[in-house]
Amino acid sequence: MDDKLIKSAHSAVFKGSDSLEGICTRIEGYDFNQGVNYSRLLKSMLSSGFQASNFGEAIEIVNEMLNWRLSDEPIAEDSSEEEKDPTYRESVRSKVFLGFTSNLISSGVRDTVRYLTEHHMVDVIVTTTVGIEEDLIKCLAPTYKGDFSLPGAQLRSRGLNRIGNLLVPNDNYCKFEDWIIPILDQMLKEQLEENVLWTPSKLIARLGREINNGSSYLYWAYKNNIPVFCPGLTDGSLGDMLYFHCFRSPGLIIDVVQDIRAMNGEAVRASPRKTGMIILGGGLPKHHICNANMMRNGADYAVYINTAQLLKLTVKMFF
Amino acid sequence: MDDKLIKSAHSAVFKGSDSLEGICTRIEGYDFNQGVNYSRLLKSMLSSGFQASNFGEAIEIVNEMLNWRLSDEPIAEDSSEEEKDPTYRESVRSKVFLGFTSNLISSGVRDTVRYLTEHHMVDVIVTTTVGIEEDLIKCLAPTYKGDFSLPGAQLRSRGLNRIGNLLVPNDNYCKFEDWIIPILDQMLKEQLEENVLWTPSKLIARLGREINNGSSYLYWAYKNNIPVFCPGLTDGSLGDMLYFHCFRSPGLIIDVVQDIRAMNGEAVRASPRKTGMIILGGGLPKHHICNANMMRNGADYAVYINTAQLLKLTVKMFF
Amino acid sequence: MDDKLIKSAHSAVFKGSDSLEGICTRIEGYDFNQGVNYSRLLKSMLSSGFQASNFGEAIEIVNEMLNWRLSDEPIAEDSSEEEKDPTYRESVRSKVFLGFTSNLISSGVRDTVRYLTEHHMVDVIVTTTVGIEEDLIKCLAPTYKGDFSLPGAQLRSRGLNRIGNLLVPNDNYCKFEDWIIPILDQMLKEQLEENVLWTPSKLIARLGREINNGSSYLYWAYKNNIPVFCPGLTDGSLGDMLYFHCFRSPGLIIDVVQDIRAMNGEAVRASPRKTGMIILGGGLPKHHICNANMMRNGADYAVYINTAQLLKLTVKMFF
Amino acid sequence: MDDKLIKSAHSAVFKGSDSLEGICTRIEGYDFNQGVNYSRLLKSMLSSGFQASNFGEAIEIVNEMLNWRLSDEPIAEDSSEEEKDPTYRESVRSKVFLGFTSNLISSGVRDTVRYLTEHHMVDVIVTTTVGIEEDLIKCLAPTYKGDFSLPGAQLRSRGLNRIGNLLVPNDNYCKFEDWIIPILDQMLKEQLEENVLWTPSKLIARLGREINNGSSYLYWAYKNNIPVFCPGLTDGSLGDMLYFHCFRSPGLIIDVVQDIRAMNGEAVRASPRKTGMIILGGGLPKHHICNANMMRNGADYAVYINTAQLLKLTVKMFF
Repeated sequence: MDDKLIKSAHSAVFKGSDSLEGICTRIEGYDFNQGVNYSRLLKSMLSSGFQASNFGEAIEIVNEMLNWRLSDEPIAEDSSEEEKDPTYRESVRSKVFLGFTSNLISSGVRDTVRYLTEHHMVDVIVTTTVGIEEDLIKCLAPTYKGDFSLPGAQLRSRGLNRIGNLLVPNDNYCKFEDWIIPILDQMLKEQLEENVLWTPSKLIARLGREINNGSSYLYWAYKNNIPVFCPGLTDGSLGDMLYFHCFRSPGLIIDVVQDIRAMNGEAVRASPRKTGMIILGGGLPKHHICNANMMRNGADYAVYINTAQLLKLTVKMFF
Repeated sequence: MDDKLIKSAHSAVFKGSDSLEGICTRIEGYDFNQGVNYSRLLKSMLSSGFQASNFGEAIEIVNEMLNWRLSDEPIAEDSSEEEKDPTYRESVRSKVFLGFTSNLISSGVRDTVRYLTEHHMVDVIVTTTVGIEEDLIKCLAPTYKGDFSLPGAQLRSRGLNRIGNLLVPNDNYCKFEDWIIPILDQMLKEQLEENVLWTPSKLIARLGREINNGSSYLYWAYKNNIPVFCPGLTDGSLGDMLYFHCFRSPGLIIDVVQDIRAMNGEAVRASPRKTGMIILGGGLPKHHICNANMMRNGADYAVYINTAQLLKLTVKMFF
Repeated sequence: MDDKLIKSAHSAVFKGSDSLEGICTRIEGYDFNQGVNYSRLLKSMLSSGFQASNFGEAIEIVNEMLNWRLSDEPIAEDSSEEEKDPTYRESVRSKVFLGFTSNLISSGVRDTVRYLTEHHMVDVIVTTTVGIEEDLIKCLAPTYKGDFSLPGAQLRSRGLNRIGNLLVPNDNYCKFEDWIIPILDQMLKEQLEENVLWTPSKLIARLGREINNGSSYLYWAYKNNIPVFCPGLTDGSLGDMLYFHCFRSPGLIIDVVQDIRAMNGEAVRASPRKTGMIILGGGLPKHHICNANMMRNGADYAVYINTAQLLKLTVKMFF
Repeated sequence: MDDKLIKSAHSAVFKGSDSLEGICTRIEGYDFNQGVNYSRLLKSMLSSGFQASNFGEAIEIVNEMLNWRLSDEPIAEDSSEEEKDPTYRESVRSKVFLGFTSNLISSGVRDTVRYLTEHHMVDVIVTTTVGIEEDLIKCLAPTYKGDFSLPGAQLRSRGLNRIGNLLVPNDNYCKFEDWIIPILDQMLKEQLEENVLWTPSKLIARLGREINNGSSYLYWAYKNNIPVFCPGLTDGSLGDMLYFHCFRSPGLIIDVVQDIRAMNGEAVRASPRKTGMIILGGGLPKHHICNANMMRNGADYAVYINTAQLLKLTVKMFF
């Protein structure tokens, strides 16, 4: 009896299998005996498995996104004359939507975002309020490195604000107030005198112009006409500023309807360009970009990097 | 030599210790030999350790929040006559800010939120857009249970939207459009004819009135004058509705400045009430409520439940 | 042109959908207007969505596991006479494998595990070393509630060990040493004199007998002949004890081969019983139980509760 | 009144702060306008904040660990003559304990571990069973890249095993059986004839010798006398092999007591070397290395990389 059981267990454990050779990539890592060659090292991620493979795929998708030209596509029957012109076709690139959560701007990743906007490598930006204000405040005073576990009560008594392991002295916000209040005054004046209807993206572009500082990604977004959307604009220090401002000089209106029109329009009117989404972190920026692209039945390229569960990357599909 | 090393290892491992008896709670779980008594079972969480202890503390803090009366406090020197009146003092309770992410409304937790608003157990609500629209849509058509791993492309081809393991048929959004467009028309009319300046919270209250359905928490919030704030109002199906509406009937303005004024005012003018925060999930609702309460140097009671890292609970301090 | 684009966007957003009515459960939460009825509340989890639904399913699977009797099955052709006897068939229940990580024993969940073993509601247990020793040590001295963020260096200087938010004074381990060393001496004696080949599970059963304390789950496992497997036995304070013991009295052998034979045998020889797996936490206990059940082509019932990514529950399949 | 409230809110929000200039590092990211210089890019992590800073610190700690020499320390009074010799002192380096979970060996990180052992850059290794067997099996047949979401039942029917997004055909385990059974036979023979008392680390060294393949880290560990500890040796395919082997040829004993003695001895007898810990992932390897180092009051250098909550790095302290 026992013998029969062992045989049955053995055949369960050593059940034969289909071959995957030639169908799936073999798992292989980087061979450091070849020396450190970063581009081969990054390429080796693809065959390393787990999140490394996803990271390797993300690199490939971003490269596809960057390399695509309209000339890669067959000429559509309903093309305009311009769309048939080879030189024009060679010049038309993907339209890249970049979304990120605010912590990336609080951190040193801000300098990378600045590089991307300075060189117009992205076309539309969506972030949350702190992702706007920290960019501006850093032009006025620095953020410092602290520790994740600093006790809140002590920090508060010293006027220090903690964002993860970063520290922002409260004086930075005082400087921000001194800088922004005259701009809000001027905006209110333009609203009253020139009938401007302000929206979050218009306010952000104005702040980018006013900061006039090459270390700011909002400055470069303004210079390069890259719209920056932030639907929940009042949820941050900017909200504090608007709050206190409306007691001194009541009346400023910031309308969100025109911005959803503008944001969706970026996706709806993207053709004949392909659209790509690079979304760092989750929440509002992720959802807002995906929703706009749903208006054109989805983006053509997509890379998501977040910790929702695992580093997730999805291609050409976002549901 | 080896003997000396072993002795040294032994004294490192068996180093003496301070006693914790009488200083710290002993870890003890529930004894099911006593039968299942749910209130004792919940109480036993406090001494169970790990997140169970945090959960036990959360229960205690919420109970403190609910039980507090102004009469528990000494009469402040600068009290008004009313604030000295014992009957009045007995009637003044904590002001409770409830924040939650939208997934709770997509799920069955919506019915609990409805109960809390129906019985006016909370005073101010902050959520994200989907936390508004799903409450209304569920009055028009149900959400269904699916699976976390259903493949996106197939769902899309069948017009099904997945939220975690929930499924929302696209027809629900069609019904939502039919219902909301006339309301937006009417709001635009009031803006043009009566000079109403709409804000997200005013729009939400109007939708609560119009849905007129006892299963909706927004209906009860409207009935009980509980303001519901949602700064990023356009990031959801509501944004789609506003987008398509502004082509048919352009001109509706939704201003966010008056809402940050109203939101912060809820905290700034809370005294002599204590304030409590119950925040389910992270992101915008959490930040928005904390920021408003910073205007009065912090809330008196706070319970956070989220997965940011662990179930985190913080009391009387929020940095 | 723009009009065409808007129409196309509109039809992308308001694409028709298949109906799910009658196919999928509607999402509905608990109605607290009915009062607090815990069994209805727990049942409502099933239709609440997200992890609540998984939790609701887990309850159902565990109930199926507990309620199954051999008499529910058709009589197999190759049944023995005993297996055809109705009374016998009514008495044959599922064989339940319970796995858990050690932190559950450090916490108050130990009392629940003790209840399950005392009433023989589980048949085989797998855990890690600390899940063995903390059960025994708690019979000698209590564990206390501390805080997740207590600084390590200060705790070390006071001889306090932190496990999550629990504190174990080092003196507890000194008491453990005083208690266990004579038992190890006796075991070595039996090895030398009676040729006993000790294995982790035999050592654990001996410790359960010696502790002789009704608050210990190992005591009840010993009393009820429930084997407790712990393949990595030396990775904990038990390892320290075996380490120091082997200098004083060298020669004790603990063999792991006989235990893998015993463990797999529990699954291989389970028939005609069904097998069920309840696995709390991940790592070794999860893998060890699944692997043993693979020897019989899988368990019949399975509930996993862990934080690997989300609370995951899998039924009748474990790959 | 309202004016007073606004002033009070203003002073709460714009509370003055202590200066951090000169005390804390300023947050600054990499400037890609300088071109891609990988070593500067890696260095910039330190001032980038969040986990990037922790990663930057990890690099610094590992470099300290690698660069330390006994000659950096003052000569201890109780030094032996050899320990006073400058040439000897220059040659004495840190003793590095490397721990990793098995998934790293399933993935392409195996090739990095092989590099570290081939060049003797680590001194003691601790892993779990699958971290042993997958290294050996990969010398017999490759692992392939699949997908995290492949359905278990279908994979099982095709004899494919999924580890995250990796696929291991069941035939690989058949080949492993063919290879290992004669070795186990030989080991049993040596036990019976030469009185060898096998332990997990001895078995692992033997397998490293037998595999005789330069792509295997176990081969290089064997060649370079780097002990590899794996206390839960039976929890994996190796356990299956030992299980089936003990029916064919009963009697093989694998003792864990001698291995805990050997493991702790690596830490206890490390002086005058400093010890460093590099621990990738959590669970048994992490705990086992920390516990051994506790025998000498802690390691001198430590880098932990895991997802327990966040990428955690701790220096010179491990409680």
